[in-house]
Amino acid sequence: IMSESAALKERLFNELDQIFLIDPHTHIMANDPASRTLADILGYHYYTELAHSAGMSREKIEEADIEPREKVRRLFQHFGPISNTVQWSWFEELCRELFDWSDGPIDASNWESLYERSAEFLKTDGWVNHVMKKSRLEAVFLTNDFDDPLEGFDTNRFVPCLRTDDIVFHLAKQSVRDRLERSTGVSPSTLQNLEVALDRLFIHFTKRGARACAISLPPDFTPTRVSDHEARVALDECLRSHHDQAVLSSSSAKILSAFLFWKLAERCREYQLPFDLMIGVRRRVYPAGVHQGQDLFDSQVSLMQYAELLNAFPTVVFPISVLASVTNQELVAFSWIFPNVVTHGHWWYSNTPSFIARDLAARLEAIPRTKQIGYYSDAYKLEFALPKFRMYKQILADTLARTFVMERGWSEQQAIELGHDVLRGNVERIFYATSNRR
Amino acid sequence: IMSESAALKERLFNELDQIFLIDPHTHIMANDPASRTLADILGYHYYTELAHSAGMSREKIEEADIEPREKVRRLFQHFGPISNTVQWSWFEELCRELFDWSDGPIDASNWESLYERSAEFLKTDGWVNHVMKKSRLEAVFLTNDFDDPLEGFDTNRFVPCLRTDDIVFHLAKQSVRDRLERSTGVSPSTLQNLEVALDRLFIHFTKRGARACAISLPPDFTPTRVSDHEARVALDECLRSHHDQAVLSSSSAKILSAFLFWKLAERCREYQLPFDLMIGVRRRVYPAGVHQGQDLFDSQVSLMQYAELLNAFPTVVFPISVLASVTNQELVAFSWIFPNVVTHGHWWYSNTPSFIARDLAARLEAIPRTKQIGYYSDAYKLEFALPKFRMYKQILADTLARTFVMERGWSEQQAIELGHDVLRGNVERIFYATSNRR
Amino acid sequence: IMSESAALKERLFNELDQIFLIDPHTHIMANDPASRTLADILGYHYYTELAHSAGMSREKIEEADIEPREKVRRLFQHFGPISNTVQWSWFEELCRELFDWSDGPIDASNWESLYERSAEFLKTDGWVNHVMKKSRLEAVFLTNDFDDPLEGFDTNRFVPCLRTDDIVFHLAKQSVRDRLERSTGVSPSTLQNLEVALDRLFIHFTKRGARACAISLPPDFTPTRVSDHEARVALDECLRSHHDQAVLSSSSAKILSAFLFWKLAERCREYQLPFDLMIGVRRRVYPAGVHQGQDLFDSQVSLMQYAELLNAFPTVVFPISVLASVTNQELVAFSWIFPNVVTHGHWWYSNTPSFIARDLAARLEAIPRTKQIGYYSDAYKLEFALPKFRMYKQILADTLARTFVMERGWSEQQAIELGHDVLRGNVERIFYATSNRR
Repeated sequence: IMSESAALKERLFNELDQIFLIDPHTHIMANDPASRTLADILGYHYYTELAHSAGMSREKIEEADIEPREKVRRLFQHFGPISNTVQWSWFEELCRELFDWSDGPIDASNWESLYERSAEFLKTDGWVNHVMKKSRLEAVFLTNDFDDPLEGFDTNRFVPCLRTDDIVFHLAKQSVRDRLERSTGVSPSTLQNLEVALDRLFIHFTKRGARACAISLPPDFTPTRVSDHEARVALDECLRSHHDQAVLSSSSAKILSAFLFWKLAERCREYQLPFDLMIGVRRRVYPAGVHQGQDLFDSQVSLMQYAELLNAFPTVVFPISVLASVTNQELVAFSWIFPNVVTHGHWWYSNTPSFIARDLAARLEAIPRTKQIGYYSDAYKLEFALPKFRMYKQILADTLARTFVMERGWSEQQAIELGHDVLRGNVERIFYATSNRR
Repeated sequence: IMSESAALKERLFNELDQIFLIDPHTHIMANDPASRTLADILGYHYYTELAHSAGMSREKIEEADIEPREKVRRLFQHFGPISNTVQWSWFEELCRELFDWSDGPIDASNWESLYERSAEFLKTDGWVNHVMKKSRLEAVFLTNDFDDPLEGFDTNRFVPCLRTDDIVFHLAKQSVRDRLERSTGVSPSTLQNLEVALDRLFIHFTKRGARACAISLPPDFTPTRVSDHEARVALDECLRSHHDQAVLSSSSAKILSAFLFWKLAERCREYQLPFDLMIGVRRRVYPAGVHQGQDLFDSQVSLMQYAELLNAFPTVVFPISVLASVTNQELVAFSWIFPNVVTHGHWWYSNTPSFIARDLAARLEAIPRTKQIGYYSDAYKLEFALPKFRMYKQILADTLARTFVMERGWSEQQAIELGHDVLRGNVERIFYATSNRR
Repeated sequence: IMSESAALKERLFNELDQIFLIDPHTHIMANDPASRTLADILGYHYYTELAHSAGMSREKIEEADIEPREKVRRLFQHFGPISNTVQWSWFEELCRELFDWSDGPIDASNWESLYERSAEFLKTDGWVNHVMKKSRLEAVFLTNDFDDPLEGFDTNRFVPCLRTDDIVFHLAKQSVRDRLERSTGVSPSTLQNLEVALDRLFIHFTKRGARACAISLPPDFTPTRVSDHEARVALDECLRSHHDQAVLSSSSAKILSAFLFWKLAERCREYQLPFDLMIGVRRRVYPAGVHQGQDLFDSQVSLMQYAELLNAFPTVVFPISVLASVTNQELVAFSWIFPNVVTHGHWWYSNTPSFIARDLAARLEAIPRTKQIGYYSDAYKLEFALPKFRMYKQILADTLARTFVMERGWSEQQAIELGHDVLRGNVERIFYATSNRR
């Protein structure tokens, strides 16, 4: 028998689980959104990096031209040690829900049966539609390179989002400058040209229905206004590098990044795009790690570094994700004070239940309900939205049940409405606010 | 039906709720302690800054000469988005308990009825006495400017407390130096005069029953002993500024602040006043915000910065508040090791239930029970002590029930005694220890 | 009557409590492992520092030549204020379990009866065996000075561990250099000699069955490769100091520490010893404190400082303890990504229930189960392993019950197996992996 509070939580979860979602941040490829084999699913960096961490060599994982089935076979020989992780529980739930798996734990003894079974499902006609419906996904936001043509897909369902890390942090690479020139028709050889190129990117993206500009930022980045003179000197140094290694002096690199970031913020203002900031990641901390399993974070970061930016762009909405849970209280306070700061999901290393639970509780009790975007899946393949969102919805239901219904005496309906705001309503409110973009 | 643990928690809460309190930190005006209209209550910065954060313009909130009723009307058009916040739940509880409001949620549709109702209550004779009794308040500590005459009120009930931010951080302003000269009769033109002025302030305050000296400190402040020579040079620079803008060079400002802070600590030792330190606030981070809604905090701060001070003044008691919950573990450890450090309440951005719950649990399990001052209301108007203290007492009762009664097997009476220590006993122990001050 | 979840937790606890343990970090003296009187037990720094913090003078606690009974008498006059602490609950559980104490709270009124009673127990033949059996201790790791002869005890039961703080941080002291020369037969007068000396230490320790090298590190320490030239200059400066005060210039001290630390890591690789890193402690922050009650921590530290080390030594296992709970998420992420990082217990100021609970939850949900060493007692006397491990096992049982059995639907058996991994299995896996050391 179930306790009263567990029953309450279940009722709330079931209601929240009916809501159709717009997933506001993913890495899904619009032209290839779903998995083809179990190797696509288990090739997700969470599984490869955890297997590697538990002792599997990178060579074994990343051998070239390895067959999907063989890849899965190898991985299953190393999944025992990760059976406790929440990432593994996502995989189990995914198999139960999408592949009707009901044979209990999946391991090295029975993976082949799952492999066959999943293959049947994955090749069915309309799999993408089926997964989206079953996952209650109405649309997903993409993460598009700045030179993505954005063609060949329904941009209402697969919503473009301009990712700008390359521009801000890698313009010293010849390949990036070449891509910029090819995609905009302008050589980034002067500040003026650079500004024209940025305008053309924003025009291209907003015409194709982009709903956000996004960037991930290292912990030591501090946005600041840079003089044209400083920027020009830094750009000139940058242009002298004719290869792909970033060889800018560290101070020039900082100046150029700050300049470009500021110019992007100006365009977010002009083209009315929210600017997603994902703060705190350190890239390639473990260069011997598997693909996408090399980055970590630094909890020594402060949102105070963003004060100048937030004050300078009062009309730009900044959905902010922080990588370190210890920065969550700053995020709560900034979102409580600054009208243009909204909280955005639970990112990466903070996307595990105990961190979500405490970060969510702190947000729900102190930030206006219209300023919290509860969750995004960050998924590379459609199949992961279901288990990741469910994890979040379980925690959300629990928090609503205990804090709002049981402690504050709210009705269940009131609690569900709050849940709706953070799951769906605010995605519309924040990313779809402007109806007539150019 | 209520679970056993919920019933236990309720019994403990009811006992704790009987205790008469001395609120050890408020911003209440002794000569005008209560609200006159609902506009005073909803003018509290929590409501104006949250409404502003949710989209209401500062101009609408802070228009000059606006009538109280009109102010409340405007605010209620923007309170929908903040109905989830704990601050809103304080308001609701306040209305239920003090204005007998029993018509459910308060919103733009029914605020006028509440306005009338509250006006009746607020103008009744003896409202101050009634609120204090109902809130179980025996006395409240004030926050007095250094030049406050401290006259016209019962200092046993409204207890003076010398606030020293202006002296330490704003002596470069001519207006502050003028106020210091007027209130002490000494021009702060030399170090010696400054010391005489400080003595006169402490004599004035302790004669009028002051129980604490208090200051709020930015995260980059590090108390340290400064040589007279350095201090003299910095003071001379300071004296050359004849207007109200702080124009001290940043290094002189730091030296002068450190010097003055140290001199205050010496006087706390001599005049036997606890020195309340409120650590971590950054002022005017969002200068376009509403009144009192412009400050934030930096979680990049360490109590290690205070080691020299704590070692230098072993006989001064330092009740310490930290603004960032991530600093709470340092506070716990410092209070566990240093005899002169006591924990002091849950301040501002850490004064929401989820942060209180985790910070309180960490304190109760590791700091001597005689060294924890549980809570202060920080209120500007008397009416807020009730809901804020109740929030705290609910969390305290829950922690005592689960950790002490259920896990450790304490009797309910033992748990209540511990609750009494942190709610009331330690306020007396720490602020009323010395019976014969000069 | 007990709720279903409480009953589940109790069943899990009872199973976990049967597991025989290898305590992977203690300060126990192999030749004198148990207490002789209650003064040994209550002389543990937790009790003396908390009594001092609550008002007892150091002089009273540390008076020379004080009789054990008198020491206990004095302490009991000051233990009232610490009755709420978890440290006190360890003492109470210890008395109940090891001295059959069943007369309820222990205080100044009845301590003498406990003193007599405990004296009877402590002098019984086979007390060490009895305590170990009752505490489910199969073996305990020691903390040995580098010049410990490691003789006169069973190294399977009392397992040597090479503690290296003195070498890395105190080589500027003549006494440390003398000890190094005496114990290795080599004068540390050149870099080459130093390397020979280190080799001899590792040979001595591994021959005597050492299972780990260990060190505690201040928050501003950053391991890095140092050139021989730099190291030579720093060593030369070091050798010129002929007394026990560290007089090295701060930059030379840093270089020498970094050099020595790196050389130790090289030997951990060569001699296949895990290198326990205990990160974050600041020594002598409160120099007027009681013995071992003077150190604190700084939460301003980042594991990013260890990235170079972790990349440079992929075959060395680093069991890492962090002193600040706010660093736990970094530890989780590093252990999730780096194959050579494992989490190690809950250290000192993070060894209280609320921090253990949140840190443990974050580890269990994201780190491979084979890479988590749940707990060590850090005890100075055998008697403390029982209550400290029980505290941990209670929290572990609770987390397993709620997160794994109730939320994820695991069987109780599965949950117990995960508990076994973190309590016992991983200690073997990590410290006993290499069967044939030189």
